Amino acid sequence: MPEPTLNVDADRLISRLLELGEIGAIPGTTGCARLALTDEDRAGRDLVRAWMTDLGLDITTDGIGNVIATMPHPSGLAPVMTGSHIDTVATGGRYDGNLGVLAGLEVIETVMAAGIELDRPLAVGWFTDEEGARFAPDMLGSLVYVGGMGLEEALEITDRDGVSVGDELDRIGYRGTAPIPGPAPHAFVELHIEQGPVLEDAGITIGAVEGVQGISWTELTISGQSCHAGTTPMRLRKDPGIVASRINVFVRELAERYGAAQVATCGVVTHVPNLVNVVPSQVTMTVDLRNTSEEVLRLAEAEFAAFVDEAAAAEGVTVESRSLARFEPVDFDPQVIDLVAATAERRGHSVLRMPSGAGHDAQMFARVCPTAMVFTPSVNGISHNVTEYTEPADLAAGADVLLDVLLALAGTDDA
Amino acid sequence: MPEPTLNVDADRLISRLLELGEIGAIPGTTGCARLALTDEDRAGRDLVRAWMTDLGLDITTDGIGNVIATMPHPSGLAPVMTGSHIDTVATGGRYDGNLGVLAGLEVIETVMAAGIELDRPLAVGWFTDEEGARFAPDMLGSLVYVGGMGLEEALEITDRDGVSVGDELDRIGYRGTAPIPGPAPHAFVELHIEQGPVLEDAGITIGAVEGVQGISWTELTISGQSCHAGTTPMRLRKDPGIVASRINVFVRELAERYGAAQVATCGVVTHVPNLVNVVPSQVTMTVDLRNTSEEVLRLAEAEFAAFVDEAAAAEGVTVESRSLARFEPVDFDPQVIDLVAATAERRGHSVLRMPSGAGHDAQMFARVCPTAMVFTPSVNGISHNVTEYTEPADLAAGADVLLDVLLALAGTDDA
Repeated sequence: MPEPTLNVDADRLISRLLELGEIGAIPGTTGCARLALTDEDRAGRDLVRAWMTDLGLDITTDGIGNVIATMPHPSGLAPVMTGSHIDTVATGGRYDGNLGVLAGLEVIETVMAAGIELDRPLAVGWFTDEEGARFAPDMLGSLVYVGGMGLEEALEITDRDGVSVGDELDRIGYRGTAPIPGPAPHAFVELHIEQGPVLEDAGITIGAVEGVQGISWTELTISGQSCHAGTTPMRLRKDPGIVASRINVFVRELAERYGAAQVATCGVVTHVPNLVNVVPSQVTMTVDLRNTSEEVLRLAEAEFAAFVDEAAAAEGVTVESRSLARFEPVDFDPQVIDLVAATAERRGHSVLRMPSGAGHDAQMFARVCPTAMVFTPSVNGISHNVTEYTEPADLAAGADVLLDVLLALAGTDDA
Repeated sequence: MPEPTLNVDADRLISRLLELGEIGAIPGTTGCARLALTDEDRAGRDLVRAWMTDLGLDITTDGIGNVIATMPHPSGLAPVMTGSHIDTVATGGRYDGNLGVLAGLEVIETVMAAGIELDRPLAVGWFTDEEGARFAPDMLGSLVYVGGMGLEEALEITDRDGVSVGDELDRIGYRGTAPIPGPAPHAFVELHIEQGPVLEDAGITIGAVEGVQGISWTELTISGQSCHAGTTPMRLRKDPGIVASRINVFVRELAERYGAAQVATCGVVTHVPNLVNVVPSQVTMTVDLRNTSEEVLRLAEAEFAAFVDEAAAAEGVTVESRSLARFEPVDFDPQVIDLVAATAERRGHSVLRMPSGAGHDAQMFARVCPTAMVFTPSVNGISHNVTEYTEPADLAAGADVLLDVLLALAGTDDA
């Protein structure tokens, strides 16, 4: 690969991020709310599609509302694709997803303006309902694109008010006719904010994402015996709260013992009746276990389950356990990961090879083509929050790395 | 003391408990709701006052609505007093408080019917708002009776709707003119259900209550850093939930280490935002510590506070600590405790000397006269619950012990 001579127009990228962020803006904050297939999502889609149209790209919309814009190209070869999503959570920021879509557009505009001839086209897409904040599961559009869920099944998914994906796509005018499953790209690379503190903490600019952690979510309903906090001796208690606390302490210790690839979180802990002088009758809690290794994740699950049984028996409480989610880890393509890392280094950036703790559309494309991701730092590790922020220099760095990686994958005369 | 020859009429006592329990009865249960100074409380008061009137007792109502009925007696000596309360919590049972009032009435009726001459009169009272479920603090009527709170201050206390004690007393017609603070009785003995599992668990019929545990309630607000459960490595977390769990485990271990006189409870644990994939930003929890020894309770408080500081510092979270309640332990009179125990043994009952884990009107009278309590077992240790229950034989045993104890304290020709 040559020394980089081309850069994206970072000011144009940032001004587009701000303009898109005005749609669904949350007053008094820099956050925005564009839940999938709402009026706000439609307005955001219309804006980005207009930019794609202005560039003269070939635009397709498929049956689940994914929109893909491809450079006109004589070869007829499968494109090198980039992209992400433009839906947000209810208290989202301007960068999550949006960066990947608008940086992809920026790369294509830069390449076209420079008159660079590629062996195969570039394409940029956005995928419906990545957040899953309105319709479960998350990453719905990319899942359907790669054939992981049938279109009919996906269209019948409803939100909390009983409104279906299909009806909402019709209503906002984004139920298209491009085939589903969609054609496999030549390769797929997604730029995304990290949404965590690892890069910032290490003082590193670019993450070369090696894969996505496997996720295991369990809900425990622990039932004991409610009783008076003053009149009931400790030895006669069946306190579900102490069992929940022991589980929290245990999974923290487990994660520390397993090392950096393992995380464990008890996010939900709900006491009933939650009164100062009453030992709870019931506690509901969730345990979120993640690891990049399926084998190790299974070990963690087994240790966790054994501890729950042991702690419950010791206290004399009963536990109902329910799996809320279970995804195996996803490994990205080693050559594309190497390409991301080498490209960032040639740009003079510090690089960290790292897993993604969150799910992304790229993990769906990993099923059908060589795939990887580029991460840029999140200030204070914050995301899914109106204070989500990434420094302009880091946005530019990420977009320039994406530019070089896409050029290398698409093949240029210079390469 | 002579061998017991006189018994209460247990059937009459139980039928009165059932009749009083019909007022404010909770449909479909054996529970009742007679919150202090409501229409239901008034109806309950009217019923019990009518029974007192039928017996020809001298009835006084004081400025805080306490009603005391005294046997007519020529001596003019201070009475031996018994009694409790007839208000209930919102999901109360038929026995908590009511037993002490109606058993006192039953003892007086039995003594009068037998024509026994006493050296000093017996009196039975009920005290306003013992539960504190509507107006804080609890044990309000007895507190004011013994001069622990001024009458004017007490009358201005309001419920959640801003309605005052004084206005409600006027409305239900129970703001009386008997002096406050009231005259100290010669002695005070209260019969009450245990409200805990100790007697049942030990297979014992009568508790000779030695005092009331000291109570220390602390609310902790633990603030950390909310973050993504997938993307945030364990070493970068500031999780208030794990600190709350460590505190729960610590105080359980502390209580076990301190022995049977110590209890510790984390009744309230509230996570914010309480989502499966988000490390909580804040956790509110309560810690309820009780001991019969003020010295040991202070040790427990100091150990607890030191652990909170240590656990918070280790995780990098901040903690705000607020005292919700603090009462020193109350010791009852050794001679009256011995009298209760000896009386129960002479009646052929098994006896356990024990502390009370809950507060009772008797602890207020301990400030002004020799005082003790008699406990009867609670089935499954349950109270403040519609399933509260005590076996008829145990009710009778408790009332007969109360009879003998009151006779011994009042002095009879037989003695």
